[in-house]
Amino acid sequence: MSIRTRPGADHPRAEQSDDSAPSRRSVLRGAVAGSLAAGSLATGARAAEPTAEAANLPPNIPEWMKAPGAPTGEQPYGLPSPFEKTVVRNISKTLPQTISASSRTPLQDLDGIITPNGLFYERHHGGVPAIDPAAHRLMLHGLVERPLVFTMEELRRFPSQSRIHFLECSGNPVYTKPYGKTASDLVGLVSCAEWTGVPLRLVLAEAGLKPQAKWIVAEGADAAALTRSVPLEKCLDDALLVYSQNGERLRPQQGYPLRLLLPGFEGNMSVKWLRRLKAVAEPAYSREETSKYTDLMPDGSAREFTFIMEAKSIITRPSGGQRLTSTGYHEITGLAWSGRGKVSRVEVSVDGGASWQDAELQAPVLTRALTRFRLPWRWDGQATTIQSRAIDETGYVQPTLADLVAVRGTNSFYHNNAIWPWRIEANGEVSNAQA
Amino acid sequence: MSIRTRPGADHPRAEQSDDSAPSRRSVLRGAVAGSLAAGSLATGARAAEPTAEAANLPPNIPEWMKAPGAPTGEQPYGLPSPFEKTVVRNISKTLPQTISASSRTPLQDLDGIITPNGLFYERHHGGVPAIDPAAHRLMLHGLVERPLVFTMEELRRFPSQSRIHFLECSGNPVYTKPYGKTASDLVGLVSCAEWTGVPLRLVLAEAGLKPQAKWIVAEGADAAALTRSVPLEKCLDDALLVYSQNGERLRPQQGYPLRLLLPGFEGNMSVKWLRRLKAVAEPAYSREETSKYTDLMPDGSAREFTFIMEAKSIITRPSGGQRLTSTGYHEITGLAWSGRGKVSRVEVSVDGGASWQDAELQAPVLTRALTRFRLPWRWDGQATTIQSRAIDETGYVQPTLADLVAVRGTNSFYHNNAIWPWRIEANGEVSNAQA
Repeated sequence: MSIRTRPGADHPRAEQSDDSAPSRRSVLRGAVAGSLAAGSLATGARAAEPTAEAANLPPNIPEWMKAPGAPTGEQPYGLPSPFEKTVVRNISKTLPQTISASSRTPLQDLDGIITPNGLFYERHHGGVPAIDPAAHRLMLHGLVERPLVFTMEELRRFPSQSRIHFLECSGNPVYTKPYGKTASDLVGLVSCAEWTGVPLRLVLAEAGLKPQAKWIVAEGADAAALTRSVPLEKCLDDALLVYSQNGERLRPQQGYPLRLLLPGFEGNMSVKWLRRLKAVAEPAYSREETSKYTDLMPDGSAREFTFIMEAKSIITRPSGGQRLTSTGYHEITGLAWSGRGKVSRVEVSVDGGASWQDAELQAPVLTRALTRFRLPWRWDGQATTIQSRAIDETGYVQPTLADLVAVRGTNSFYHNNAIWPWRIEANGEVSNAQA
Repeated sequence: MSIRTRPGADHPRAEQSDDSAPSRRSVLRGAVAGSLAAGSLATGARAAEPTAEAANLPPNIPEWMKAPGAPTGEQPYGLPSPFEKTVVRNISKTLPQTISASSRTPLQDLDGIITPNGLFYERHHGGVPAIDPAAHRLMLHGLVERPLVFTMEELRRFPSQSRIHFLECSGNPVYTKPYGKTASDLVGLVSCAEWTGVPLRLVLAEAGLKPQAKWIVAEGADAAALTRSVPLEKCLDDALLVYSQNGERLRPQQGYPLRLLLPGFEGNMSVKWLRRLKAVAEPAYSREETSKYTDLMPDGSAREFTFIMEAKSIITRPSGGQRLTSTGYHEITGLAWSGRGKVSRVEVSVDGGASWQDAELQAPVLTRALTRFRLPWRWDGQATTIQSRAIDETGYVQPTLADLVAVRGTNSFYHNNAIWPWRIEANGEVSNAQA
């Protein structure tokens, strides 16, 4: 075993007087601001000219450098800057908050693919229960050899896995009402996190499934006792019993202390506050898979058990409510995802759909995870419409709203994965092109 | 373009009366708890027997299901459960908080590789400044063709990148004082996040570097005006000017609104609250790269500019301060990382270093990111010592503390990447084997 150091790193420190080095003092004395030239920026970003705001330009010392800042101990659990107080979840004012409510992730203000836990979207059917993890139990029963009850400590003894996956409400957006001004208004019921928990198949193996078992009915410990039926093949595939999200334990709004996670399936099937799993031969036909979360078709039939969230994408910058302040270079960026696996391509149109270009996908592209895409673009100052469409690894192409309506009609409520265009006016204002 | 649905998903919903389905009511009536058998759990996790705690077992309705829970609007920006109030940053009581202070990530309580922003470690030299992003400026000057000053808005116009990287203080842990009880006490000055920002090389290209420029001196806008010299090759490689962390804007403690990020380099070089970059021919020999952050060798010379954090790992569970409550199956899990690239292997010993086994690495393994490892283990109830060692893609093997001391002596303070063993007593208590 060798201890390798950087080549040259073991050289003794050279004798060096403070005078010979470009000390901070001499740099600060330099009349740098006066010599600034506005560069011809290839990216289109403009250099600030030193004008009346010179008090805050680097040769001067801003107020916050003149005295020690806040102590470390002030926030044992940290919070965002007060200057970011508008970056919060977008909460509907019209829904009864403890009966059926939601809050949306501010996608237009976020970067990357990880949604911070404080901004992860919420959807509750009976409010957020305050569960003592020491008193919480998970029961596994029904068509099993050995019915079992687990404490949280026992579940944490199982082999664990961590994976980055998106989670999305199936009503994101409601497609018969193309309301909403921002990306959050439209598709803010999607977020993405690194989840840690136990593969459900390991827990099922402990109980021993009987051959007749074809579905697992999952029940939450909220006041709604939210109940969904999950096909056994999904339970034996990538389903997780999750206790942590982005490193720390689940937030109460995300099912603390335990939730089911069914990657790629509509969000409410990933039952929060999970208390019970029953192995059965037929689905439960619960409220949330019959009167809700089914798609009424033009012929009066209902698509049911439409679990998988199909490929979708949205441009988050520039997006509705934002404004382009100058012509020239802008990065178009957004998010794409598919419940069927990886996103293989995202195409962007900047001319109302007449032509499409491939966007760059941020690596690594992960299965059933948000995928960040980016396209360099020069805006010529003319009014136009921009939009993105995702193609997943199965070859499926995100449809237009017209394509979707042609197949599903207008009675449907859930599973709208249509392309969502943004209108850019000549003054730079960006708005929902279908509102 | 076709709109594909799940095979069979378009079937009309079968007529089904509530009586024929296993309704929630009938399930709850069933005397399931009475039929529980303690399974012979291959994993060692035990099924809870229904005893005096039966009031909380699933056939009964816990208190939190009997009334609606908290409303959605209660937390526009969410927080952890009150039951997790002890999972906070570990703050030294002995350091003057506004002069030179730190707080540590509670690694032993976390899962996966992402550190939530509220628990990301901190290290400040002059407290946390409260910076108004609209007034913040970055100046780029020195050996450049066009000195430039940027607003935050201008920096956000540049092409962006998002990458997951660890960040680590070079004094993690201080190796001449093997104090500390927990994983956080020892190596809690490391965390990992998805960072978004502008490749520094693009910003440098805007200004146009002169051929004499070999270093970039970075200065922070805190009261310490923390200053470090960065070799130009790193600036042109993977350095980022970061404005977002785990999706949202940087927290004040992490440099809001702008920080440098030098993946794999010692943490303080990733200058927070970044206000100035000066291109120079020689390093600045600032306080934090001369009197601090150099390694005093046995012969009296000092290793300086030892930027790269070498391969390291730590078992986080079981770890110091925890207790094994029973023999049988336990998952050993921990974190490994290397400033030189990807972790290629982690070996774990459960017998005091006599033998080593390969742990499983959580995919995807990312360059200069924390890597979660796991090893299934059956504890026989005997006292023993467990430890891990990381091997990175360059072939470098994490050394023992004795190996490190043999080369560096005992004057050194920083860059301790030694193996850290945990002692497990016969009663299950886990403690620092080198304390």
